[in-house]
Amino acid sequence: MQAGIIGLGLIGGSMGLALRETKMFKRIFGFDINPLHCQQALSLGLVDECVDFNQIQECDVIFLATPLEAMIQVIKQFKTIAKTTTIIDLGGAKEKIIASIPKKIRKNFVCAHPMSGTENFGPNAALQGLFDGKIVILTDIEQSGEFQVALAKQIFVEIGMRIIKMDSKDHDKHIAFISHLPHIISFALANTVLSQEEPQNILALIGGGFKDMSRIAKSSPIMWRDVFIQNKENLLDCIDCFEKEIARAKTLLQNKDWEELVKWMAKANTLHDFL
Amino acid sequence: MQAGIIGLGLIGGSMGLALRETKMFKRIFGFDINPLHCQQALSLGLVDECVDFNQIQECDVIFLATPLEAMIQVIKQFKTIAKTTTIIDLGGAKEKIIASIPKKIRKNFVCAHPMSGTENFGPNAALQGLFDGKIVILTDIEQSGEFQVALAKQIFVEIGMRIIKMDSKDHDKHIAFISHLPHIISFALANTVLSQEEPQNILALIGGGFKDMSRIAKSSPIMWRDVFIQNKENLLDCIDCFEKEIARAKTLLQNKDWEELVKWMAKANTLHDFL
Repeated sequence: MQAGIIGLGLIGGSMGLALRETKMFKRIFGFDINPLHCQQALSLGLVDECVDFNQIQECDVIFLATPLEAMIQVIKQFKTIAKTTTIIDLGGAKEKIIASIPKKIRKNFVCAHPMSGTENFGPNAALQGLFDGKIVILTDIEQSGEFQVALAKQIFVEIGMRIIKMDSKDHDKHIAFISHLPHIISFALANTVLSQEEPQNILALIGGGFKDMSRIAKSSPIMWRDVFIQNKENLLDCIDCFEKEIARAKTLLQNKDWEELVKWMAKANTLHDFL
Repeated sequence: MQAGIIGLGLIGGSMGLALRETKMFKRIFGFDINPLHCQQALSLGLVDECVDFNQIQECDVIFLATPLEAMIQVIKQFKTIAKTTTIIDLGGAKEKIIASIPKKIRKNFVCAHPMSGTENFGPNAALQGLFDGKIVILTDIEQSGEFQVALAKQIFVEIGMRIIKMDSKDHDKHIAFISHLPHIISFALANTVLSQEEPQNILALIGGGFKDMSRIAKSSPIMWRDVFIQNKENLLDCIDCFEKEIARAKTLLQNKDWEELVKWMAKANTLHDFL
């Protein structure tokens, strides 16, 4: 079998490395509209060869690893997909992507969200073992072809992932709280501190807390713009909930209600119980 | 010389381990109002012996590592401090602590904030090497005795720390942004997600982002209550700034102003340049 990867950044590039290790594929092809990404992916050995869009459509398995809005454009351009082709999209929001898939190639698609990544982006950010031991969520698989689902599962197992299944609507709602909201918060914290503090003060005073809390504020603005475009409504609901928690803390501080503030923090501490 | 440590939690306990490695002290004594902490500290080898408050006052160097409000009570109770005693307080907010030091023992004090810690607390959280390579901020040292400053500096260098000096007022203002605000945000994020999501969903969907962003939400409520009590005004200013950034993101999302949202995230990305 031959694999194709569209989008050779952190996720696509790491997928190239992971697929090579499985030895399931004779050859791994790449496609990226940015010629520099193709060059880098080749020199880093993320894929065996970069090809044009027509050729990538002939691969047995095609991974989509572009930002989400570009992914919708890519899906529109598929012309010559064979019945046995498996297309695995790796996007972080699912409803809009799934809605964009033309009916006649719907069974070709397995819609997956690997719960792995880093704050870095581009081919140079690709990591061996990025998916190993992580969870991958397969969404709306009852709409995918049986063969495609079986093959996709085998690939994810081979690269060390644990599979769970979820409805795309539920996925987007839950993931907004657990992933998209933390990103908005991290960007907001970084901007708060950057607008108030000189870099030398940040460096002098930094502890593990700010370092951890600001790490994902270094993430790709384009990738996250597309996530936020596609999951806007859920994310806005999450921001409302979060604003209420911040307002609660503020009120407790203003009222010097230390007893309630301790209870509020102790509630957060219950994360210890399962995390 | 003999060292005494008042408060045998994460910081005090780790200080015991660090001091032992320096071989600067013949014996390391501990004091904690919680008898269980004393037992644990002894069995973990964090200190050589637990003694009463009178005995701890006779040590050549006394570290204060209790929560901040307890620290003010401890300082009030010092009775028999010799002119050559060095008292090093390790609190995370400085103005209120410094204001509480009686004039006649002011020169004994070196007021320090080691920029190190974890989300864990109590003697079991003590870590060998916690201070190694980290920054310690000495505040208002012009009010400390020359001998005491020299000795404190030597100890911090011996345990691997890099020293910077700062005015306590500036310290509390800057540290509110870089440490205290991130803690409030992490508690608020944890509470948002805990009130909206079942633990099994959190576990299923968790990625590195939420893990990092919620780590410090596991921190000690008592320790942080005291920090928030003592640095309330600065912290409230920080929360105001942060709320504006969150509101900005929300407005951009609501208005679908993707171009500005990308700029907003790209600004946060500039952390890359120095962090």
